Amino acid sequence: MTAGLHFFHHPASVAVVGASDDPEKIGGRPLRYMREFGYRGQVMPVNPRRREVQGTATVPSLADVPETPDVVLVAVPGAAAVEAVVTAADLGAKGCVVMSSGFGETGAAEGLRMQAEMLAAAQRTGMRVIGPNSQGLASFSSGAVLGFSTLFTEDPPADGPVGIVSQSGAMASVPYGALRRRGIGVRYAHGTGNDMDVSAAELAATVVEDPDLKLLLLYLEKIDHPEWLVELGERSRRNGVPVVALVGGRSQHGSRAAASHTGALATERRVLEALLERAGIWSVRTAHELVASTELYLQDWQPRGCRLAVVSNSGAMCVLAADAAEDAGVPLAELAPATRTALADALPAFAATANPIDVTAALLTDSSIFGRVLPVLGADPAVDACLLGIPVAGRGYDVERFARDAAAFAASGTPLVLAIPQASVAAPFIEAGLVVFEEESSAIGALAQFLAHRRRMERAGTLRRPAVRGGTDAGGGQLNESESLVALAEMGVPVVAHEFLPDAGQVAAAFGRLGADRVVVKGCSHEVSHKSELGLVRLGCASPEEATSSARAIADAAARNGVPLDGFVVAPMVHGVREVLIGAHVDPVFGPVMVVGAGGAYVEVVPDTQVLLAPCTVEEVREAIGRLRMAPLLDGVRGEPAADVEAWVAAVVAASEAMADPGGRVRGFDANPVMLRPAGQGVCAVDAVVLTR
Amino acid sequence: MTAGLHFFHHPASVAVVGASDDPEKIGGRPLRYMREFGYRGQVMPVNPRRREVQGTATVPSLADVPETPDVVLVAVPGAAAVEAVVTAADLGAKGCVVMSSGFGETGAAEGLRMQAEMLAAAQRTGMRVIGPNSQGLASFSSGAVLGFSTLFTEDPPADGPVGIVSQSGAMASVPYGALRRRGIGVRYAHGTGNDMDVSAAELAATVVEDPDLKLLLLYLEKIDHPEWLVELGERSRRNGVPVVALVGGRSQHGSRAAASHTGALATERRVLEALLERAGIWSVRTAHELVASTELYLQDWQPRGCRLAVVSNSGAMCVLAADAAEDAGVPLAELAPATRTALADALPAFAATANPIDVTAALLTDSSIFGRVLPVLGADPAVDACLLGIPVAGRGYDVERFARDAAAFAASGTPLVLAIPQASVAAPFIEAGLVVFEEESSAIGALAQFLAHRRRMERAGTLRRPAVRGGTDAGGGQLNESESLVALAEMGVPVVAHEFLPDAGQVAAAFGRLGADRVVVKGCSHEVSHKSELGLVRLGCASPEEATSSARAIADAAARNGVPLDGFVVAPMVHGVREVLIGAHVDPVFGPVMVVGAGGAYVEVVPDTQVLLAPCTVEEVREAIGRLRMAPLLDGVRGEPAADVEAWVAAVVAASEAMADPGGRVRGFDANPVMLRPAGQGVCAVDAVVLTR
Repeated sequence: MTAGLHFFHHPASVAVVGASDDPEKIGGRPLRYMREFGYRGQVMPVNPRRREVQGTATVPSLADVPETPDVVLVAVPGAAAVEAVVTAADLGAKGCVVMSSGFGETGAAEGLRMQAEMLAAAQRTGMRVIGPNSQGLASFSSGAVLGFSTLFTEDPPADGPVGIVSQSGAMASVPYGALRRRGIGVRYAHGTGNDMDVSAAELAATVVEDPDLKLLLLYLEKIDHPEWLVELGERSRRNGVPVVALVGGRSQHGSRAAASHTGALATERRVLEALLERAGIWSVRTAHELVASTELYLQDWQPRGCRLAVVSNSGAMCVLAADAAEDAGVPLAELAPATRTALADALPAFAATANPIDVTAALLTDSSIFGRVLPVLGADPAVDACLLGIPVAGRGYDVERFARDAAAFAASGTPLVLAIPQASVAAPFIEAGLVVFEEESSAIGALAQFLAHRRRMERAGTLRRPAVRGGTDAGGGQLNESESLVALAEMGVPVVAHEFLPDAGQVAAAFGRLGADRVVVKGCSHEVSHKSELGLVRLGCASPEEATSSARAIADAAARNGVPLDGFVVAPMVHGVREVLIGAHVDPVFGPVMVVGAGGAYVEVVPDTQVLLAPCTVEEVREAIGRLRMAPLLDGVRGEPAADVEAWVAAVVAASEAMADPGGRVRGFDANPVMLRPAGQGVCAVDAVVLTR
Repeated sequence: MTAGLHFFHHPASVAVVGASDDPEKIGGRPLRYMREFGYRGQVMPVNPRRREVQGTATVPSLADVPETPDVVLVAVPGAAAVEAVVTAADLGAKGCVVMSSGFGETGAAEGLRMQAEMLAAAQRTGMRVIGPNSQGLASFSSGAVLGFSTLFTEDPPADGPVGIVSQSGAMASVPYGALRRRGIGVRYAHGTGNDMDVSAAELAATVVEDPDLKLLLLYLEKIDHPEWLVELGERSRRNGVPVVALVGGRSQHGSRAAASHTGALATERRVLEALLERAGIWSVRTAHELVASTELYLQDWQPRGCRLAVVSNSGAMCVLAADAAEDAGVPLAELAPATRTALADALPAFAATANPIDVTAALLTDSSIFGRVLPVLGADPAVDACLLGIPVAGRGYDVERFARDAAAFAASGTPLVLAIPQASVAAPFIEAGLVVFEEESSAIGALAQFLAHRRRMERAGTLRRPAVRGGTDAGGGQLNESESLVALAEMGVPVVAHEFLPDAGQVAAAFGRLGADRVVVKGCSHEVSHKSELGLVRLGCASPEEATSSARAIADAAARNGVPLDGFVVAPMVHGVREVLIGAHVDPVFGPVMVVGAGGAYVEVVPDTQVLLAPCTVEEVREAIGRLRMAPLLDGVRGEPAADVEAWVAAVVAASEAMADPGGRVRGFDANPVMLRPAGQGVCAVDAVVLTR
């Protein structure tokens, strides 16, 4: 992709258009922040009415700057902002940050026009623009604070291993504040605004290239450039900087191809989630979740797996931790016999040696219990991580010792989280650098996210880069049944043997040629996709005569319903052990998307589907099918044979290749039902609608 | 139920067996706490080795107390504890609290024996016992602290409107500590322990009778006496004291009736949840959730409905709040045109007047916005509650004024929650008595719980008291198909017309008598419930001869599989628009339970069921059916007729009456499939297995 936006993070010089002497004003805060937070580059305030602002000499206009600034920060409104951007481009600035609002975000024509003017000026010279309507960028490694967030005075910055990139200013400040109040250093707190030129995802893809970073938090509301999310994911994995993303609201784009009903089943949000998963980006639902697991990402843990051991001085916390682990999908470690023997030695009589481990109230009289129990667990290869829970302690307990023992254990490398509701009890653990939560379910939830995110990143590396080539519904058309079956077969989806007959009189002969006991006769039309309701399908015709009379009845029904018929399809009646569906469409934002699911007549009413970005790998399709509610039926139940899932997978993979091909003529299809035969006997689409470009 | 356990809350006198001079010891803490927390009754320490403890004169043995204590608190171990309980009973004490452990909870024979001995002594005189293995009871209205929780020194008590009853000592202390640290007064903090005699639910049913209480928090791990949960729910509603419950772990009891496979679908946890819902008790999953909504219950709000208006100075928080509201099932209020006009006057240009309402950064320059906007929303009858979110503020904002305006609005009666991450910004709101959360999703989650809990309590009042009469699998047997159909019909479930024939030779004649085109022939046996796999079902027999040969083939299959046949059932082939199931079993703890769901061959592999406690009301069954995944199919889709749901509901209600009848002979049944005919044409069970007592 592009050369990167690193100059925004450590510009050699910054011009501030609209620089104010008042350090509380939007045009004054960046000057104050850069001074206070150690920016060492050149600052050039632009102000036509003052010789100096906040102790720095000004120039009367941007055109008067003594040298070309790396970055121009714009804090003047409306037409003046446009003028500043144009001038910055003319000067040859590398970048511009436009904090002013009143442009595209208003939806008003004048705002949109001015925004377009800024973009055109930037594109003319290759200058990159953040904003407009941006809270600005803050880089605390260099002190280049090109923004006005008030939170930097409320919660003073400290450089650290976390980056924040957000389309919303508030959602740059909220996680910044939450982390700073927890004592975590934040290197970047960027609010990008309207994303007219540089998108939050593109900026984030530069941020994760910082070798000191350990975590990126991302907040998005609209996704115009999913290819940057894909690129962000690749760089995130390459640089070992996990990305946790919160996407607020629904996609602004994307009305579905109405004619393809599996398209309607794949909401934008599901496609977005599929994209994030494919990119190895963890997706959360709330602002709280965005920051809830941060401490874990900063630990340099290298866990082998995700099996948890739980230790507490409370039986109830053991019970609740086991519940929470099940909720979070974290398995409890099955301890080895040797571990249980060693635990029996370390624990009082009556204490259970199975996981979770209740050390009982004996902790009050024997302060060494945690120090004895934790290493025993750490030595068991089945234990990948530990939770130590102390719901009640205080006077009478040797809390300092507990913290020392926990820290010594953590130093051995096994991930350890703590659940300690009392601040006074938690203090020495936090002091020792341990990760402490108030409660077992939040501790386990955070651990579950951290572990699952690692797996997601590893898995993403095994997948193919999605096409993310958006499309529109414009142009193209719908193939009739016969053409659709042919097109599907060309894409690699096996279809039922069939004949197309323009005339009802030809149907009887086709019956003979197909050599089947019973056939289905369908009316073929470019115009309809739900044929059964219109009387255009006749199943189980057992003779040439019946087939012919069915064709005539279909022709009558078509005429009655005003459906123009192209002719008839005759095909053998095919049965399978399961009916499934394969669908595809081109999402206007995210590009080609595959849908797999349970098939049949009720897929819209009781949907059971999964979406995948094209092209897909075999493993990916297998996993998606495994997540269907119907999945248990595929193994063969109640004496029925297992279904040929592998043939289904192969058909989906093949079709996904075709959908990902930029030269392909198909822009969507819906094959339903696809009959799954017994394992080894393949699949066969018996009904299809294909849309072309 | 019983006369109540109020004497535990304000005993006239307390004897402490094992009273210690050391105020940090288990036998010393209660004395110290009662002194410090203002207990005014008589305290009689029992200690054979000291003349006085902590300044109070002792008696050498419990038998020597000058008068009969209301309550005896036992802090001595093992046999001495048993002796104390026996003596307390002999003295005529009303109650005993046994803090000592080492009894039933160990699972050891000696511990169980001693516990049984204590129970027998108590039952002899009617004395009530809390524990053993109890952390004890704490009543801060009277100062009667009959327990040893260390947390009362860490987080000093203050009397207030919340009661806590927990089987676990830690889970009495953890919510106590969480609430106290939030400044909320707690009147009761009871840890009951082994619940040998008094269960936590029974104690809770006494606590909710306190007229000053506004909320009860309940933690349970085992439920031996669900009838007390039912009673607790009734008293909770009668006294207007909501109950929020956390049930840790899985039920210790209850292995399912293996022969009834719908039984296997109804896990204990689902039945427990059904019971809590029926009782109007709100059920949470984590210790955090147990206390997360407390402040809302203390507000005396009387909301009309649950439609939310959101106001924030951040567009992102508006977006995230709308997402969170959808997640929580809280609808956003649709504002009236007059409201939107008034908002347009109150807001800056470009600010949207639709809900959620972004007042924009204009708040920084116009501090009166919240004060103008909130009353406009409060006047709209569509607004039942408000969220005010301030993700970023601080210097430059008139936070004090925002808090005053919010408090003035809240005083008008509309429930208001706030989302404010910065402690300094939140402070004046908290000061004003408002309910403040750090983040919009937790604020909305808490509000959603509060509002849904109100609805649950109101609805619970319209339902019937569940039978909660546990049963066992002992005795009884399984009826064969023919007997099962007859038994089902007697319970009010319509069944298919059918004939039972002991001999295959009689089947042909039955074919004629049934007058159907096609019949099904089934082998009848007491011993099997899954007949198809064994070759005991032949569908679609079209002639007397085919029916006879089918019966002979079934007899062969039965012989081959070693299944003893009672004879044959012949029934017409019946079709419906949908196949569903009705099941019932007697849960060993919770009593008779009904199961409704999608029917067919795959109910165990891809279950779609709901459980209900018997007896059920029509509305309740309708709602349960509405929650099925298959529910949308019942209305009739793709041109098919709607199914006769009302007939299904009627059959379930009738069967639930029969199951709830203590004299009924059926202890479980599984009718699957039950054919739903088109609306108005009824239902018909075509396959059934009935278990009798």
